[in-house]
Amino acid sequence: MVEYSLSELAEHVDGRVEGNPDCKINHVATMSNAKAGSICFHTSPKYKNELLITKASAVILQERNVSDCPVSSLIVNDPRVAYTKVATLLYQEDKSGLPSGIHPSAIVGNNTKFGDNVWIGPNCVVNDNVVIGRNSRLGPGCYIDDDVYLGENCELIANVTILKRCKVGSNGLIFPGVVIGADGFGQVNDKGKWLKVPQVGNVIIGNDVEIGANTTIDRGAIEDTKVGNGVKLDNQIQVGHNVHIGNDTVIAACGAIGGSTIIGNNCAIGGAVGFTGHLEVSDNVIITGRSLVTQSITEPGVYSSSTPLEPNKKWHRNYVRFKQLDEMARRIKKLEKNIEK
Amino acid sequence: MVEYSLSELAEHVDGRVEGNPDCKINHVATMSNAKAGSICFHTSPKYKNELLITKASAVILQERNVSDCPVSSLIVNDPRVAYTKVATLLYQEDKSGLPSGIHPSAIVGNNTKFGDNVWIGPNCVVNDNVVIGRNSRLGPGCYIDDDVYLGENCELIANVTILKRCKVGSNGLIFPGVVIGADGFGQVNDKGKWLKVPQVGNVIIGNDVEIGANTTIDRGAIEDTKVGNGVKLDNQIQVGHNVHIGNDTVIAACGAIGGSTIIGNNCAIGGAVGFTGHLEVSDNVIITGRSLVTQSITEPGVYSSSTPLEPNKKWHRNYVRFKQLDEMARRIKKLEKNIEK
Amino acid sequence: MVEYSLSELAEHVDGRVEGNPDCKINHVATMSNAKAGSICFHTSPKYKNELLITKASAVILQERNVSDCPVSSLIVNDPRVAYTKVATLLYQEDKSGLPSGIHPSAIVGNNTKFGDNVWIGPNCVVNDNVVIGRNSRLGPGCYIDDDVYLGENCELIANVTILKRCKVGSNGLIFPGVVIGADGFGQVNDKGKWLKVPQVGNVIIGNDVEIGANTTIDRGAIEDTKVGNGVKLDNQIQVGHNVHIGNDTVIAACGAIGGSTIIGNNCAIGGAVGFTGHLEVSDNVIITGRSLVTQSITEPGVYSSSTPLEPNKKWHRNYVRFKQLDEMARRIKKLEKNIEK
Repeated sequence: MVEYSLSELAEHVDGRVEGNPDCKINHVATMSNAKAGSICFHTSPKYKNELLITKASAVILQERNVSDCPVSSLIVNDPRVAYTKVATLLYQEDKSGLPSGIHPSAIVGNNTKFGDNVWIGPNCVVNDNVVIGRNSRLGPGCYIDDDVYLGENCELIANVTILKRCKVGSNGLIFPGVVIGADGFGQVNDKGKWLKVPQVGNVIIGNDVEIGANTTIDRGAIEDTKVGNGVKLDNQIQVGHNVHIGNDTVIAACGAIGGSTIIGNNCAIGGAVGFTGHLEVSDNVIITGRSLVTQSITEPGVYSSSTPLEPNKKWHRNYVRFKQLDEMARRIKKLEKNIEK
Repeated sequence: MVEYSLSELAEHVDGRVEGNPDCKINHVATMSNAKAGSICFHTSPKYKNELLITKASAVILQERNVSDCPVSSLIVNDPRVAYTKVATLLYQEDKSGLPSGIHPSAIVGNNTKFGDNVWIGPNCVVNDNVVIGRNSRLGPGCYIDDDVYLGENCELIANVTILKRCKVGSNGLIFPGVVIGADGFGQVNDKGKWLKVPQVGNVIIGNDVEIGANTTIDRGAIEDTKVGNGVKLDNQIQVGHNVHIGNDTVIAACGAIGGSTIIGNNCAIGGAVGFTGHLEVSDNVIITGRSLVTQSITEPGVYSSSTPLEPNKKWHRNYVRFKQLDEMARRIKKLEKNIEK
Repeated sequence: MVEYSLSELAEHVDGRVEGNPDCKINHVATMSNAKAGSICFHTSPKYKNELLITKASAVILQERNVSDCPVSSLIVNDPRVAYTKVATLLYQEDKSGLPSGIHPSAIVGNNTKFGDNVWIGPNCVVNDNVVIGRNSRLGPGCYIDDDVYLGENCELIANVTILKRCKVGSNGLIFPGVVIGADGFGQVNDKGKWLKVPQVGNVIIGNDVEIGANTTIDRGAIEDTKVGNGVKLDNQIQVGHNVHIGNDTVIAACGAIGGSTIIGNNCAIGGAVGFTGHLEVSDNVIITGRSLVTQSITEPGVYSSSTPLEPNKKWHRNYVRFKQLDEMARRIKKLEKNIEK
């Protein structure tokens, strides 16, 4: 097990130790389950009681909370960021023992270009003209279609599908069940029958992108669907054709992003948010969970839609009144006129 | 084809026959498509007309409906439960002919422990230190990562992915496309760039759990994500990191359960219900379809949110008024004050 | 690269050329990125500025827009339909070089019947008694369970799962991650424990059906789940047990269709629309994105639900008022009575 002294960790995160700089840390824990060797982080006064009695070896916190900490403190400006860096250090996977090359069960096409130390795992199928950058690793059962480009240091955990001509930049992390490059949903009605509109664009994904399990990103109709650098997508998100997602935007699980939606940089989109398509969202927009976006958002800020949860009977009385909202507004107007007279 | 006499079925479900105890039953049917050999069930007066003219050999129903039944009756307290037991008996798969062992195309790592009669199907990949209890069966294309534990009598239909160190109890039934143990969505913003928070917890799933197609259950950030005994999850549900789902809770398809949500025992959650995360739902809570839960629920009962469907033009008039709701409330207040004077 | 003269394309779509009938077309483009060899389409006055300066070789448009077109025109009644036909022609895949037969890594059971020119791709698993019509192609990693029937000219892109006894008609196009025939969600409560209701129906899918990535279609409880001819399903849709989807209905991504919902012919269902189950939707119904359908729809027309997106603070004021809607309505009524006096 990897182990660091608290002073080593402090150096790593540019923090200061209060207490024992030599105490040994070898895992992270929650405050209430911490024990010798644990490091925790503290941010909210809500959890002060847990802090006061923690059995961790050390706690990452801000200066102002030091006096509440019964054990050694690692003092930083942003405990979450420091915790993340510490945990990343403690749980760094030793990749030196991992295999590289092509597993005998994998099936690899012609004219591929694989960088040093690439791993093509069991039962993978990699078609012709695929380029994979050095240190990239494909777990079991991935399917990489013709002419796909994968950058360096990508990790496809397992059962990832990337279809023709799509590109993923460096440092991509892609979870099982992800499908990149399925056809966008283009159907045109010709006298009652639906004709399929050929989807001839691709999917272009930037560097440092994470894509959660079972998320789907469709190829563009004419031009490309684009996912910017540093984008983080959670599980089960649907990204329609010709969507653009700006750099460093994060999207929580189960989003449904309709075709040709343009989302700016540095946005934070909650879970299950819907976008009806063909709209633009500016940079630095936050949208709370389960909102539905039907129009462009031109100003940074926090946006929401949805209605409150209530006990079913009470809810139902309000629910039926929703159908009378316009009428109610007119009646109020009329009452005001009457009163005025 | 398996066949039982009605009296045998009655004994199996602790019911009483009215009519011919010797009639032969070999399949279930809906009332309107029933024929000789069929058994149906009847619960609701809404379907009385179908009952009156059914051509089934027998109908499972309550005492009070016997007089409406033109054929033999199997009388029980709860026709749905009795139907389920009868159907389970009639459609019991004969597993004696099924293969066991490891299909030659499967790839199995080191130090695995497989119980008697385990089946590792074609193209499965099972990594090191995996434990699989007796009678468990992995259909084609499953990927079981290092240190996974699967109990007895589990059935993974096909293409199931279970990542490192996750545990599934006995009698699990897991459908294709399920991903257990992908990383929870933990991202911390460090001066505009998102740092990945290591997800070092696991997923711990109890006994007798069913998990529907393409459902995803993320591993915990520090501690574990937990799914209790007897939980039934439908398709395309997203279970975020550190969620706990209590025993014998059922969740219909497309739910989106935000991280650290704690759901109690014996809850029934409708389809596409969202939970924003970091909230608690007590035992015995029912939530109707498409509700959004943004706060803890501390009392048993039925809860709902959502607004009604209307013809588009009418809906739009009400929809725009939603933005005036607060103003409308204030105007009503003002009118009341004026009237009072 | 395939190339056609504009006059050949005009003949193909029954249109008329204004300008140079001999100009060569070899790809489609958007108006703003067009160049020599490009063909575009124009429908909306909104994009008139792009049209006026396009560098395409030709534009597909209606008679009335010819005067705005700086290059050759292909004049038709419905530019979208004509575009679709042109693009289909230009991007027609040459299938003559594709392999047929069974890839050596595929595993095929007994008593299968494959038509001429069928392709069973790498790592596919096809069980016993499967019938696959001529020219159908299974990409890598598909799993086809016992007794499945696939018609002619089907294309399963990759990693598609079709379970026991399900049927897909001719010309099916099925994207990765699709699961057809997982058990419907049938659970009956027996003294606090959930019993699984055997799902003994199948899934029957018509001809000319497209099914998007990670969509799931459950088998029926007693009778079959049915998807009509010409139906187009986008990604990540959940189709519950015993749902019927009528002919030529299209459903955008992320729909959640509760069990026993009957949807008519020629409907157009937006993204993320929910149906609570056991309801009927007539033919020719349009439902806008993210609506929730809780009751049957008996008349053709456009239907909607949902509430507007607002800046979070403004939204929250209205959101809390939703709980007072019924009370507000009563207070308006009372005010009206008071005024009347």
